Amino acid sequence: MSAVVPYENIERGADWLRGGPEGDVVISSRVRLARNLAGVSFPGRMSGAESTRLMRLAQQATLDIHPPVADGAQSLLPNKLHWVQMAELAALDRMLLVERHLVSKEHAKSDRVRALLLSLPDERHSIMVNEEDHLRMQCVMPGLALGQAWAAINDVDDQFEEQLDFAYLPRLGYLTACPTNVGCGARLSVMLHLPASRLSGELERVKRAAKDMNLTLRGFYGEGSDGAGDLYQISNQTTLGRSEEQLREMIELRVVPQIVAFERKVRDELLRQRSRYFEDQIFRSFGTLRSARLLTPEEAMAGLSLVRLGVVLGLITGLSTAAVTQLMLLCQPAHLQRLLHREMDQQARREARADLVRHRLVCCNW
Amino acid sequence: MSAVVPYENIERGADWLRGGPEGDVVISSRVRLARNLAGVSFPGRMSGAESTRLMRLAQQATLDIHPPVADGAQSLLPNKLHWVQMAELAALDRMLLVERHLVSKEHAKSDRVRALLLSLPDERHSIMVNEEDHLRMQCVMPGLALGQAWAAINDVDDQFEEQLDFAYLPRLGYLTACPTNVGCGARLSVMLHLPASRLSGELERVKRAAKDMNLTLRGFYGEGSDGAGDLYQISNQTTLGRSEEQLREMIELRVVPQIVAFERKVRDELLRQRSRYFEDQIFRSFGTLRSARLLTPEEAMAGLSLVRLGVVLGLITGLSTAAVTQLMLLCQPAHLQRLLHREMDQQARREARADLVRHRLVCCNW
Repeated sequence: MSAVVPYENIERGADWLRGGPEGDVVISSRVRLARNLAGVSFPGRMSGAESTRLMRLAQQATLDIHPPVADGAQSLLPNKLHWVQMAELAALDRMLLVERHLVSKEHAKSDRVRALLLSLPDERHSIMVNEEDHLRMQCVMPGLALGQAWAAINDVDDQFEEQLDFAYLPRLGYLTACPTNVGCGARLSVMLHLPASRLSGELERVKRAAKDMNLTLRGFYGEGSDGAGDLYQISNQTTLGRSEEQLREMIELRVVPQIVAFERKVRDELLRQRSRYFEDQIFRSFGTLRSARLLTPEEAMAGLSLVRLGVVLGLITGLSTAAVTQLMLLCQPAHLQRLLHREMDQQARREARADLVRHRLVCCNW
Repeated sequence: MSAVVPYENIERGADWLRGGPEGDVVISSRVRLARNLAGVSFPGRMSGAESTRLMRLAQQATLDIHPPVADGAQSLLPNKLHWVQMAELAALDRMLLVERHLVSKEHAKSDRVRALLLSLPDERHSIMVNEEDHLRMQCVMPGLALGQAWAAINDVDDQFEEQLDFAYLPRLGYLTACPTNVGCGARLSVMLHLPASRLSGELERVKRAAKDMNLTLRGFYGEGSDGAGDLYQISNQTTLGRSEEQLREMIELRVVPQIVAFERKVRDELLRQRSRYFEDQIFRSFGTLRSARLLTPEEAMAGLSLVRLGVVLGLITGLSTAAVTQLMLLCQPAHLQRLLHREMDQQARREARADLVRHRLVCCNW
C-alpha cells in the first residue's frame, strides 16, 4: 500500500478534476455518509483501547470486503483501495490530503489513532476512519452527478454494513456525533464555479435563496473560506427528517440547475453588454498570471477563476477548463512543495507558484 | 509643402526617438533659442498688421536661406524645411505637434497668426514663428548630445541673423518677452528616463540637487506634467549672465552624467538585491500591456516605462528601447486618432490604445 498520494496522481489529478456534466459551472458532486459502530463510544469520548478496536474492526472489514490481490494492494471497483495510517504521514502530506478534499483539517491534525481509506488513482472513494464519526465515507464525481455519487457511496455503505454493526435507531435513523447529521447521515454537496454571479454582485442573493431552502453556500475549503477562485460548495445543513432521495432531488434537480442557469445568464449578459470591459478583466488576469514572478494564493486563485471563465466563453483558446481547475489545486501550498520536492517558506512558495502558473499558461494562445 | 506631420513619419518616428549616446537613460537633448526682431513689438502686445509683417519677414528669410528646390519643397541640411501655417491645421494635428514636442500648447491654441517651420522627416529642427517670442528655434538630437544640438541650432540662428535684425543689447544680450530668457536666449534641456530613481524614492533628491544648480526637473510635457512614463526633462531656468557654453558644460558634462550614474547604480542594485520583486514588477507591467483591452494613458506610460527598463536590463528580449519610446508617443491621444484615421472619445481611445500597445508588444519574447 502506498502511504500517500503518489506524485503521478498529483499531476494526473483525481477524476473530479477532469470535468463532467454542466462542467462550465459545476466542478464536482460529492456525497458523504457518517456512520458509527454500535457499542463503541463516539470518537470525541472514546478511550485508547476503543480507538485501537475501531481501527482493527474497520481494517478487518476492508480486508473482508476487498481481499488482497496479487500485487499486494487491495481492489475496490476498478481502483485500488489504500489504507493510510494518518499518523505515519508527514505534516506536508496530511496537508496535501486536505487540499485535495480527501480528509478534513481536523482529521489531518488530530492526535487520535486514525486512518484514511482512499481509492487510487481515481480518488473517487475515500473513508476517514475515526474522524468526528467512526466512518466518514465520501464519493466525489466530476460535474453534476449527485445521483451517481449517491449510488456509488451507497454500495460502499452496504458492503461495510454487512461486516459492521452500525448504530441505528428506527425513530431517528443513523446515529452520529453531531445532531445535524443524524438521520440518513448524509451530506450532499456540489462544487460550483460562480465568477459571473460574483462579478455582478448577485452572489448574496444566491446565498440567501440557498439558506431559505436549508442549504449553505460556502467557499472551496468549507466554512470560513471566502470563495477563493469563485468556487463555492452548496450543501445540506441538516439531514434529520429528510430522506436522502428528497435531499438529492432538491439539490440536483431544482437548486443547482437554477444557480447554473443564473450564472450562465450573467456570463452571457456580461459578454454581450459590457464585452470590452469584461474581456479586459479576463485578459488582464491572464496576462498577470503569465508574467508575474511572485504570486500569492489569493491572487492566483482569483486570476485562475477569470481565466477559467475566459476558457469557457471561448475568449482564451488552447487551454482546457480541466487544466485550469487542476492548476487551482496545484498552486496550493502543500501541492507546490510536493511538486518541487522541498519545504518552502511563504516567499519561496510565492516564487514557485508564479513559476508554475506562468509555465503552465505560457504555451497557450492569447 | 506638406501641412502636417505625414503618416509615414508618425510611424517611422523623429530622429530623437531612435536613441543615441547614453541611450539607456538619456532620451534626447534639446536646445531652444528665443529671438525677436528689432522694431517689432513682442507677440503679446503686437497689432494685427505687425503680426502679418513678422510672418512675411520670417517667410522671406526662410526662402532666402533655403531657396525652393526642384520638387517645390525647400532644403535645409539633408532634410526639407516645411512652412506650416498653424491656423490651417485641424485641432487634432495641432495636438499631434504638441505631443511630438514640436510646438508648445500655447502655440497650438493661440488665436494669433502663427507658423511652424519644421524639418522633415528628421524633425530635428523646428521654429515656432510668433509664439511668446517672434522666433523660437529648436534643435533636438537623440541621446546626450547637447553640444551637437547647440552647434546645429547656432548654424540656423546665424543664417537667420544674416537676413533679420534681431533685438540685442550689448549689456543684456538678446531681448526676449520673458526676462528669464534674456541673455543668450537659450534653453538647454535633456530628457531622461528615470524609473529606478523613482522606484527607489530618490527622485526628490535629484530634484533638489538640480534646483540648487538653478536647473529644473520637470515631466515629459513640461511644467505641471508629473513624470508620466518616468520621463523627466532637466533644463536651465534662466539664461541671463551665463554664456551658452557655461550652461552646456554644466548640464552635459557635470549634472546629467551624475544623474545617469545614479540611475544606473540604482538599477543595478534593484537587479542584484531585490531581483525577484523587481522582475515581478517589470513582467507584470509587460503582461498587463500585452493583455489589457482598455488602457488609460497613465497606465500605458507607467507600464511602458517599466518595459523600457526591462529591455535595457536585458530581462525583456526581442524588443528595442526605441520601439518602446516610440510606443510612448504613439499611445498619446492625437497620435492614436491619427493612426486610426478617426476622432475618438476617451473610451474609444482606451480601447484603441490597448489594441495598439498589445499588438506591438505581443510579438516579442517573454
